[in-house]
Amino acid sequence: MQTDIKLEQSIWANPSNPNIVQIVDQRYLPHQIVIEDLTTVAQAATAIRDMHVRGAPLIGVTAAFGIYLALKNTQPENWEQDLKEATKLLLATRPTAVNLSWAVNEQLKTIATATTLAEKIELAYQNAGKLMADSIDRCKAIGEFGLEKIKALQKETGKSRLNILTHCNAGWLACIQHGTATAPMYEAHRAGLDIHVWVDETRPRNQGARLTAWELGQAGIPHTVITDNAGGHLMQHGMVDMVIVGCDRCSRRGDVANKIGTYLKALAAKDNKVPFYVALPSSSVDWSISDGLKEIPIEQRSGREVSQIVGWDGDKVSEVRLVPEGAQVANYAFDVTPAHLITGLIMERGICAADENAMLELFPEQC
Amino acid sequence: MQTDIKLEQSIWANPSNPNIVQIVDQRYLPHQIVIEDLTTVAQAATAIRDMHVRGAPLIGVTAAFGIYLALKNTQPENWEQDLKEATKLLLATRPTAVNLSWAVNEQLKTIATATTLAEKIELAYQNAGKLMADSIDRCKAIGEFGLEKIKALQKETGKSRLNILTHCNAGWLACIQHGTATAPMYEAHRAGLDIHVWVDETRPRNQGARLTAWELGQAGIPHTVITDNAGGHLMQHGMVDMVIVGCDRCSRRGDVANKIGTYLKALAAKDNKVPFYVALPSSSVDWSISDGLKEIPIEQRSGREVSQIVGWDGDKVSEVRLVPEGAQVANYAFDVTPAHLITGLIMERGICAADENAMLELFPEQC
Repeated sequence: MQTDIKLEQSIWANPSNPNIVQIVDQRYLPHQIVIEDLTTVAQAATAIRDMHVRGAPLIGVTAAFGIYLALKNTQPENWEQDLKEATKLLLATRPTAVNLSWAVNEQLKTIATATTLAEKIELAYQNAGKLMADSIDRCKAIGEFGLEKIKALQKETGKSRLNILTHCNAGWLACIQHGTATAPMYEAHRAGLDIHVWVDETRPRNQGARLTAWELGQAGIPHTVITDNAGGHLMQHGMVDMVIVGCDRCSRRGDVANKIGTYLKALAAKDNKVPFYVALPSSSVDWSISDGLKEIPIEQRSGREVSQIVGWDGDKVSEVRLVPEGAQVANYAFDVTPAHLITGLIMERGICAADENAMLELFPEQC
Repeated sequence: MQTDIKLEQSIWANPSNPNIVQIVDQRYLPHQIVIEDLTTVAQAATAIRDMHVRGAPLIGVTAAFGIYLALKNTQPENWEQDLKEATKLLLATRPTAVNLSWAVNEQLKTIATATTLAEKIELAYQNAGKLMADSIDRCKAIGEFGLEKIKALQKETGKSRLNILTHCNAGWLACIQHGTATAPMYEAHRAGLDIHVWVDETRPRNQGARLTAWELGQAGIPHTVITDNAGGHLMQHGMVDMVIVGCDRCSRRGDVANKIGTYLKALAAKDNKVPFYVALPSSSVDWSISDGLKEIPIEQRSGREVSQIVGWDGDKVSEVRLVPEGAQVANYAFDVTPAHLITGLIMERGICAADENAMLELFPEQC
C-alpha cells in the first residue's frame, strides 16, 4: 500500500522495467491507494474480471497490455497457442464493454505484421502504449468539445453556476487520463467556469461515491454525492442543468449501454427537459450492431456485490452484509438507454446526435 | 435484544402495563430483533424522528400513542401546556407523511370531548388503539382489492408466475399488520398464486434490502433483492408484470409522495407499459392539496445516511463509510410521482384512477 502518491493516471508501463505494467487497484479507493504490478496475462485478466480496473477505455488498454504480457512470457515454440489462450481468457473477462474486444483485435492485427516473437513482443508493447496514448488524446478532445457545450448552456440558461449530474465513474480512473464524462468537467473547471457536479453513488459497487467523488475532490471541483434514487427529484425541481455519462458500448444507431441505472436517469432527463449527453471515444462504438437493447449483452455479476458492501470502518476497509442471511439477490451490471432519450454524443471528433446518420457523418470510414 | 420472537406487528400497547407502548426498533433489522419500550412522548418523537419506526401508517399510530403518553405523564394543572408541546414535538419529527398530522389531529379532536384529565387519558388510549385497529382493517381491505387486481393481471397476461416490483418497505413493518404495498402480495400468496417480488434495496436506508426482504422471507414469498438502479432494465426486458409501492402523502388529484426513487420507477413503468399501482389507506391522502410536486414538503435528512451504511459484520451491526472523508453529501428522502404516471390507487374502499373525480367517487365525504 502506498498513500503518499498524487495519481493522475490509471495504468502505466513501469518505466524502469518493461516486464511490469502497473495499475491502481481501484477496489480500495478512496480509502487506500494500492498500486498493483501486472506481470502475466492471467493477472491482467483477473484485474479486469474482478474490477481492480474498470471503465470501458481502461479495460481496453489493460487487455492490450495483457496480450503483450502473454507474449512476453511465452516461448517461440508456444507463442501461437499461448496467444490464442490469452485472447480467449481476456475476451471472457467482461462481456459488455466493446473496447475490450476492440483493443485485443487491434493488438492481434499489429502482431500479425511481425515475423519473429521478439518483434511481436516489441510491437505489442509499442501498440499498447499507442492505444493508451490514443485514449488520452481522445478523452482530451472529448473534454474540449464538451467544454463548448457547457459554455453554450451557460449562455443559454443565463446561470452562473451549472449543475451537472453524472452516474458511475467515467473519469480518468475509467480511462487513462481526463476521463470521458468528466473530461468536460475538468476542462470547464480549468477554464474557470462555475460548475457543481451531482455524483450518483452508483450501486452496487459505488463507483460514483468512491471514485468520482474522490477524483473531483482531488481536482477541487465542487460536487455532492447523492443516492441513485435522487436524480429524478433534483431534475423535477430544476436542480440539474445537464447530465453527462460515459458508455460501455454504443450501437451504430446510438443506443448506449452504460452502468445500470443510466436508463432511469435518461427517462427523468427527458421528462424534465434536461439535456442528456453521453461522452465516449469511438472505440466504445460497436459498429456491427444496431439495436442496443436486443444486441448488447448485459453482464450479470455476483449477487455478493449487492448483498455485501465494503467501506472504511475507521481502521481498515471492511465488509458488511446488507440483506437477511441467505436472501436471493440479482446483479445486472448495465442497462441500455435507447438513442431517442439521448440529446447528443460527445466524441473525439465532435458532438453529434445519437443516430446513425449523424454518427457516420463524424466517422465516414464506418459507412 | 430478543431474537426468538415471531413478530407480526410493528407496535402494540403492552397488555400487562398500560404505561408502556412497545415497538420493534427497525434500525437493527434484519440482523437483530430489538423491542423498545416507549413510556414518554419524547421517546415516541425520537422513535419517529430517528426512524426506529417508519412508514406513513406506523408513524401516525406511533404519534397517536405519543399523545397518549404525554397525557399519561402530565398533571391536571399542566395538561394543556404539555399537550401543546407534545403536539408540536410530534408534528416536527417528520414533514412528509401526512398520517402524522392526521393521527395527531384525530387524537386532539377525541381528547377535546372529555372533561377531566383521567377521561382524556382513557380516551387517548382507546382512540390510539382504534386508529391502530382501523389501520389494520384498511390494510387488510387494500390486500383484498389488490388480490383481485393480481388475479385479473394473471388472467390477462396468461402467465403462471407474476413478477411484482416494489420500492422501499410498505409492509407490515411500515404499518401495523399486512402492509399497504405488500398486503396484496400476502393475500396472493395465501390464495396460492405464484408470485415473485423484485425488492428494490432502497438507498440510503435500505428498507427494501433490510425490511421488505426480511418480511417476505418470513412469509415464504419468493423474492429477489436488486439495486435501485436495476428496475428499468428488468422492465425493458419484460421481467416485471406490475409495480406496487406505498405512499407517504397523496394529493387530492393523485400525485404521490413516496420514498425517493419511486418517480424513476414510475417513469420506467410508463415507458415499458408496466402497470404501476400505489397502495394506500385514505389516511395518507392530504385532501387539502392538489399539486403534489409543488405542495408536498420533501424531507432532507442527514447526509450521514448516505455517506455511512450499517450492516452485519459477522459479529454485530456495524457501520462503514462509503465516500471520501469529508465529501459533501445530500439526502432527499422522498420524491413525488405525478398522477399521470400512476395506473391506479389501491385503497381500502377499492381501486381508483389517480385523479380527483375517481378519488372523490370512493370518498364522497371529501367533496
